[in-house]
Amino acid sequence: MNIAILFGGSSYEHEISIVSAITMKKVLKKSTLTYIFVDANREFWLIDTDKINSKLFSSGEYKKSKSLTLKKGGFFTEGMFGSKKLDFDVVLNLIHGRDGEDGKIASLMEFFSIPYISPRLEASALSYNKLYTKFLARSLGVRTVDYEHLSKNDERKTTMPYPVIVKPVRLGSSIGVSIVKDASELDYALDVAFEFDTDVIIEPFIDGVKEYNQAGCFTNEWELSIVEEPHKEEFLDFEKKYMDFSRDSQVLSADIDETLKIKIQDAFKKIYDPLFKGSVIRCDFFVVDSEVMLNEINPIPGSMANYLFDDFEGMIERLSRHLPKDKDIKIDYQYIHSIQQAKGKA
Amino acid sequence: MNIAILFGGSSYEHEISIVSAITMKKVLKKSTLTYIFVDANREFWLIDTDKINSKLFSSGEYKKSKSLTLKKGGFFTEGMFGSKKLDFDVVLNLIHGRDGEDGKIASLMEFFSIPYISPRLEASALSYNKLYTKFLARSLGVRTVDYEHLSKNDERKTTMPYPVIVKPVRLGSSIGVSIVKDASELDYALDVAFEFDTDVIIEPFIDGVKEYNQAGCFTNEWELSIVEEPHKEEFLDFEKKYMDFSRDSQVLSADIDETLKIKIQDAFKKIYDPLFKGSVIRCDFFVVDSEVMLNEINPIPGSMANYLFDDFEGMIERLSRHLPKDKDIKIDYQYIHSIQQAKGKA
Repeated sequence: MNIAILFGGSSYEHEISIVSAITMKKVLKKSTLTYIFVDANREFWLIDTDKINSKLFSSGEYKKSKSLTLKKGGFFTEGMFGSKKLDFDVVLNLIHGRDGEDGKIASLMEFFSIPYISPRLEASALSYNKLYTKFLARSLGVRTVDYEHLSKNDERKTTMPYPVIVKPVRLGSSIGVSIVKDASELDYALDVAFEFDTDVIIEPFIDGVKEYNQAGCFTNEWELSIVEEPHKEEFLDFEKKYMDFSRDSQVLSADIDETLKIKIQDAFKKIYDPLFKGSVIRCDFFVVDSEVMLNEINPIPGSMANYLFDDFEGMIERLSRHLPKDKDIKIDYQYIHSIQQAKGKA
Repeated sequence: MNIAILFGGSSYEHEISIVSAITMKKVLKKSTLTYIFVDANREFWLIDTDKINSKLFSSGEYKKSKSLTLKKGGFFTEGMFGSKKLDFDVVLNLIHGRDGEDGKIASLMEFFSIPYISPRLEASALSYNKLYTKFLARSLGVRTVDYEHLSKNDERKTTMPYPVIVKPVRLGSSIGVSIVKDASELDYALDVAFEFDTDVIIEPFIDGVKEYNQAGCFTNEWELSIVEEPHKEEFLDFEKKYMDFSRDSQVLSADIDETLKIKIQDAFKKIYDPLFKGSVIRCDFFVVDSEVMLNEINPIPGSMANYLFDDFEGMIERLSRHLPKDKDIKIDYQYIHSIQQAKGKA
């Protein structure tokens, strides 16, 4: 199979997308990979798979590559003798953060009829925004951590007992996130978060909370990863998460009993089906008093959470054969015809 | 000002978008109009403003027009001597239903840096889906009509007293909507709705409910339309709404007292600001016992609800000067540089 890896994007996570993309060479070994880079200016470039490395991008050397145009049915190179369609079977959307996770790439692929692995438009819009993720989870009967929502111009206060955690609603990879130990620190944490976003959520910071990650997808059946208990520090800052995005070796399952495992898997399935069909996502859960609560949805997880699966490459191939199809809408101009007839014009 | 009217789309409302677009010639008289048609196959065509009429599309004759390619910064015609950018100041998104209202067009304009009047991506995703509109309204403190949500595979039952109204969650213009008078009719109504969508909402059908429409936008100040009491029948079916989309003459304000008017305007402002900045929307409200409840958001109202405004053309021009800007994200490759340094490669 020929998989086009779409990466980069106009995103704070542009660089970690490059790291995720390069990692795919180590985990998709049997497939042919076609690398399509979206630069900071949102232009498309065809990157030589043999030569891909991070310096190609940081040095600007990628601009010597062929540029690509997005048109009906695919990406095209333009040459002397017209345009030529780039050959691949499916796009794997690996753009973290803005563009990739907010629904823009999904919209582009959908509009131009390109088969793609990624959350679709609605799934993206709801999971990119942590406030909307709360609405979604609650409507599906999945518990979440309590929260308060503040907009930029709202009064800066919280009724939550400290410590709390302040998060911009729309960013991933812990960007702009702060733990606030008492009221004196709140203002600064909000300044930081509002640098990145117009809206923030404030949640209780639960010291020593048990955290478990579950990734997976639905092909023609459920393909769920092991449940991972992520390495815990106070919380992962950007640089640590960044390194984390290049992971390619498998980890061990969390040491949890079957009951808890099933609870986590059930919560994952409720979130995933049907909204996230066509994508591989990772859900991060908190467990407090045996109660499973959704913390975050990672719609494009770092290096696609490959290290949590036994047969990641096989799953990607199966998923590409079971992508959701948008409804065909037949346009027959029956209303315009009937109006023209009524007017005596037809 | 040169306004590019983007219309058509792969949507059940493709034909009414054509009607809306043609109506703009009568209401945007001082502006230069550039017509960009999105055909059923999602290809772009430049339509001659002097020759536009509905038959051009129903006959397929539009295919003799110049085709357009969407690239960074605009729409381009391709010719012998390279590509030429189409000249206009702003796009007015007039695609009703799928593509236009679901966030795809917003994504395309945003991605390719084209200034546009339309709800942005998040606003589109939330208002295109009537279930998500409920979440949104409730989170903003705006009341809505009660509802139940059914997915295609759920058990077909409701606890609501009859009569009820069954609506597909994602369509406009009353497509797939039924009024259900008793339990014996429910199954058929659900069959109809599930023809169009995977999800429906069921609401009480409130006989004789007072309905009021409020349109508007925020330029550098609030520009709200008159409050309209729409012509009521049992409910508007598709053909009646269709004819309604070609309206271009002003209507009279509803005969309501100042208190109710202010309640309606306040509810509109809560919904609009800040999510819908950059767009002209119409909100349809029900009033029961002086309580204002959001019925629907029309993110791209028929003929842009021009008939509700005193100075529609002036407002569009002012709005085009006050469009929201996406945050610039500077990509400086500092993480990649620092990793390269750590590895001794730089």
